[in-house]
Amino acid sequence: MLSKAQIKYIQSLQHKKNRQKSSQYIAEGDKIVQELLQAGMPVKAVYATGSWLEQHKSLLTGLPADAVKEVDNMVLKQLSALTTPNNAMALLDMPPADNSLPAEGTVVLALEAIQDPGNMGTLIRIADWFGIRQIICSPDCVDVYNPKTIQATMGSIARVQLKEQDIPTLLQQSKLPSYAATLHGKDITGFQAIKEGIILIGNEGRGLSDTVISLATHRITIPRLGGAESLNAAVAAGIICGRLLI
Amino acid sequence: MLSKAQIKYIQSLQHKKNRQKSSQYIAEGDKIVQELLQAGMPVKAVYATGSWLEQHKSLLTGLPADAVKEVDNMVLKQLSALTTPNNAMALLDMPPADNSLPAEGTVVLALEAIQDPGNMGTLIRIADWFGIRQIICSPDCVDVYNPKTIQATMGSIARVQLKEQDIPTLLQQSKLPSYAATLHGKDITGFQAIKEGIILIGNEGRGLSDTVISLATHRITIPRLGGAESLNAAVAAGIICGRLLI
Repeated sequence: MLSKAQIKYIQSLQHKKNRQKSSQYIAEGDKIVQELLQAGMPVKAVYATGSWLEQHKSLLTGLPADAVKEVDNMVLKQLSALTTPNNAMALLDMPPADNSLPAEGTVVLALEAIQDPGNMGTLIRIADWFGIRQIICSPDCVDVYNPKTIQATMGSIARVQLKEQDIPTLLQQSKLPSYAATLHGKDITGFQAIKEGIILIGNEGRGLSDTVISLATHRITIPRLGGAESLNAAVAAGIICGRLLI
Repeated sequence: MLSKAQIKYIQSLQHKKNRQKSSQYIAEGDKIVQELLQAGMPVKAVYATGSWLEQHKSLLTGLPADAVKEVDNMVLKQLSALTTPNNAMALLDMPPADNSLPAEGTVVLALEAIQDPGNMGTLIRIADWFGIRQIICSPDCVDVYNPKTIQATMGSIARVQLKEQDIPTLLQQSKLPSYAATLHGKDITGFQAIKEGIILIGNEGRGLSDTVISLATHRITIPRLGGAESLNAAVAAGIICGRLLI
């Protein structure tokens, strides 16, 4: 059973300002909760139906007994931030702020001012597919702990480290090559697969800022053969990863 | 001014069964309506604010005077199927059914059971970017004339021909090579750029059907370097186009 205060607290985490104040967030969904537990993420509590808890008993052994709460579908619906509630939710700690630079020999994705929670989730999923272990978000990106974002990652949030940094500062301090996605760069088919670097993707409407474009060591463009003015930011990131990483 | 009956008719086109009965659909949005008019699509009427009509007078010369209706924002809001209504809408005829096969020397995108209107719109935009002029949808795809789909195409619906066909029949009858996106095919990096063919993308959850996979001349896979189980259908299509078409 959950107390009224606990229900109220979980509901409050639907709002960014409350998540920031408490440094906690909620992940919803059968598969996502499983993957978070499997990946050893800092899960503080699990709220799920009796049958879900029974079925995934082995995943819950690391949690104190009072952190595993059986709730019925009515309560899950009350707790959910999504239109279609799931049969399991988890409460997690956010990672501490981290200003370290990406390590040599790694590829990271850096996102500037991505606004749509669904796009953000899809970008995390793309990173996970291509083995990118770290995403750096500019402070004006949509909150990565938004319930819709977590949902759209399809569990990839368990395997990709997310951190917030100022992108121009990152580019000034890092020695890694960087690849800025723009409409006026070098044709991406002219690049070989890379082993390290920062792939830069900008806002859905205006793309990357001039500052970021000018600081990048490479400007790259997906050649356009037809009439569309632009590509969706997540699709562009996927195409770039599909050329630079495989 | 619009009559009550006209308002009711336009609103009725938010529902697939009414669109199918009348073979007409609505496109919303300043830029989309402009692009549809510029592309010479079968626009039957335009409903827009006075200032929009004044600003785009030159685009409207081909329409009979009674097909151009000035409406205020209140009426546009009433007509709109979207949460954020726009200052222009167009009424269009659907193209007639077309069972012809794709021409030699062309690339087409064939979609099986795509369910999400946003994904469908993004797929149309990807096709337009890469110069694919035709998309073939299986009968169980989401309706391409869904208002959310049209919105997500960002105007690309004006440049890509959309038609509905049975995909297995298409593959049996067409002489073009076909490329089925699956999780167990040949690594896409082993393929050269193609000049003709049918690129096959399947349902968001289950991918392509076994029938379609077995009828395709090639099975292709985007190599997975990380932990994600799958990619979003539109992202996968983008990555495949980014390998096979450029």
